[in-house]
Amino acid sequence: MSCQAAVAWEAGKPLSIEKIDVAPPKAGEVRIKIVASGVCHTDAFTLSGEDPEGVFPCIMGHEGGGIVESVGEGVTGLVPGDHVIPLYTPECGECKFCRSGKTNLCGKIRDTQGKGLMPDGTTRFSKDGEPIYHYMGTSTFSEYTVLPEISLAKVNKDAPLEEVCLLGCGVTTGMGAVLNTAKAEPGATIAVFGLGGIGLSVIIGAVMAKAKQIIAIDINTDKFELAKQLGATDVINPKDYAKPIQEVIVEYTDGGVDYSFECIGNVDVMRSALECCHKGWGESVIIGVAGAGKEISTRPFQLVTGRVWRGTAFGGVKGRSELPGIVEQYLNGEIPLKKFITHTMPLKDINHAFELLHEGKSIRSVVSFD
Amino acid sequence: MSCQAAVAWEAGKPLSIEKIDVAPPKAGEVRIKIVASGVCHTDAFTLSGEDPEGVFPCIMGHEGGGIVESVGEGVTGLVPGDHVIPLYTPECGECKFCRSGKTNLCGKIRDTQGKGLMPDGTTRFSKDGEPIYHYMGTSTFSEYTVLPEISLAKVNKDAPLEEVCLLGCGVTTGMGAVLNTAKAEPGATIAVFGLGGIGLSVIIGAVMAKAKQIIAIDINTDKFELAKQLGATDVINPKDYAKPIQEVIVEYTDGGVDYSFECIGNVDVMRSALECCHKGWGESVIIGVAGAGKEISTRPFQLVTGRVWRGTAFGGVKGRSELPGIVEQYLNGEIPLKKFITHTMPLKDINHAFELLHEGKSIRSVVSFD
Repeated sequence: MSCQAAVAWEAGKPLSIEKIDVAPPKAGEVRIKIVASGVCHTDAFTLSGEDPEGVFPCIMGHEGGGIVESVGEGVTGLVPGDHVIPLYTPECGECKFCRSGKTNLCGKIRDTQGKGLMPDGTTRFSKDGEPIYHYMGTSTFSEYTVLPEISLAKVNKDAPLEEVCLLGCGVTTGMGAVLNTAKAEPGATIAVFGLGGIGLSVIIGAVMAKAKQIIAIDINTDKFELAKQLGATDVINPKDYAKPIQEVIVEYTDGGVDYSFECIGNVDVMRSALECCHKGWGESVIIGVAGAGKEISTRPFQLVTGRVWRGTAFGGVKGRSELPGIVEQYLNGEIPLKKFITHTMPLKDINHAFELLHEGKSIRSVVSFD
Repeated sequence: MSCQAAVAWEAGKPLSIEKIDVAPPKAGEVRIKIVASGVCHTDAFTLSGEDPEGVFPCIMGHEGGGIVESVGEGVTGLVPGDHVIPLYTPECGECKFCRSGKTNLCGKIRDTQGKGLMPDGTTRFSKDGEPIYHYMGTSTFSEYTVLPEISLAKVNKDAPLEEVCLLGCGVTTGMGAVLNTAKAEPGATIAVFGLGGIGLSVIIGAVMAKAKQIIAIDINTDKFELAKQLGATDVINPKDYAKPIQEVIVEYTDGGVDYSFECIGNVDVMRSALECCHKGWGESVIIGVAGAGKEISTRPFQLVTGRVWRGTAFGGVKGRSELPGIVEQYLNGEIPLKKFITHTMPLKDINHAFELLHEGKSIRSVVSFD
């Protein structure tokens, strides 16, 4: 079939709206009609050319919601009409990662997904017969896209896909980082560095975890109002202080926080986030994706005296097992997704979403395909 | 009273055997007769002058065993004749660290201990009226030493102090790193970097944890025989390979180890230890103490893909609560301390113990005061 899609022909250039061809799903694959897709910093990061794994031309987008259009041979868990959220972290249930019980990083299709290909090593997208690559295994900036069945979470049809698409990346990542990765306990003190979609979702997770203090940190003070609405108890602008922000927070909290989260992708901030943790038990979780070749560092004494440095991808959430339940939490009113959606636009205006993101003016822009 | 002690008059010089004065214990303090003391790399590190917190002149030694000689006012848990192991990590049971249930890093007397002083801000050691500083709150290279009651673990009198003195630092640290800090589970794969006293103790801990594979790594192949005797399943000399040791181990273990331990204090090895861990769940524990100003680094991607970086001090063991039980384990034959003691010598030969240590010829030298 042919349909509209936003194609990234090369790094550093705006996306181009094109009529493309989408092949039918092969064995184990599913073709879905995308209803809505958020625009995330990771899309912008790859488009910038800084992502060493970026492959062009491709169709980006990884925060979508859609409806099954057709299924390939051997697909048993989905039928046309099912509502689904695409997963850039699949869940095969069979590989050693899935079986470990310790991680959500399914290894089944990692190699081909990283190269912009479907598991059989080919693409389902093309224009004038020339292949266009997939992106993060999802490619949600297209009216139709194809994914392996293991990369789709089936969700309740009552949930509006224009909102729960955000659970396909940012919101789940931030919440999961608190609840799954850090496993913050009631009464914990938490510091959140960076108040974009991920950082604000960390605040939601911290509220769910019943944290007693949630310190929101950003140099863009425009973000403070929403952070407070969502549950931040304190807001701090590092520019208001001469000394390093980690020292400010250690003093402010009488020793440091129990958990901190880096939601930017800046290696200097990652260090601050670690070092603002309390001696003896503070844990810092890296969520942001740093540029190619960037390294984190600290004195080993920080760890020897009890701090823990960890990271998370998709909030440690196993998509097919856990995302349906998170959608139910949303339906129960526990996750205020609406507050995240500052802009909505048709596919043809998608480049404006990237502009808003770079200007720090949006939390999330959602592209609606209706 | 006056007694013999090995005094470190200044950094970089051998210790000097001197007749010194040891004041009686003040309130909350205990004076003990040292029976034996191990000589540990940390003593050598401070003596070298590289330790930014080193204070001279001082009496070093922190791996001792002794007998209570007298107690100060208000001491309720110890009486003369009790056998004790000095603790450089005290356990007051009252500070926020002790009450947290998350760490063994008691904060009660940290400030004074770090300055070589007793909790009241003075020293109990002197020569010709001039004060000599304490070291790590223990100062076991003296026939008599004074410690706060909270820095002494009372242990079973059946245990020979010439052996269980090693539980005052190295052996407990290595074992505890596996059992308390990493909490390695049965069937785990473990890599140990550096086969000194700490690394060998990690092997003992790994055996206790029922690890299925224990990979011992050192550039000094003389250490391999004892490592294997203690339970190492594989020994690797990084010099035998052209590629980085972390790549060697990742290939050798089909993805990396579940837990790794750095037992040297070398920041490059700390990076190798992290990066040889399995994606998704591998955890690396820093035990070694790095030189002043040294920093660890890695790409944040290592953590975002599920590796965890942590550290440990005294193996996470709360000395007064847990060390008596570890001594019982020793008495039950679970901890082969004898294998660690490669040399025994009187106090007057203590500088030879440092020479053996620098030459890599000893696992542990124990100074016997009898």
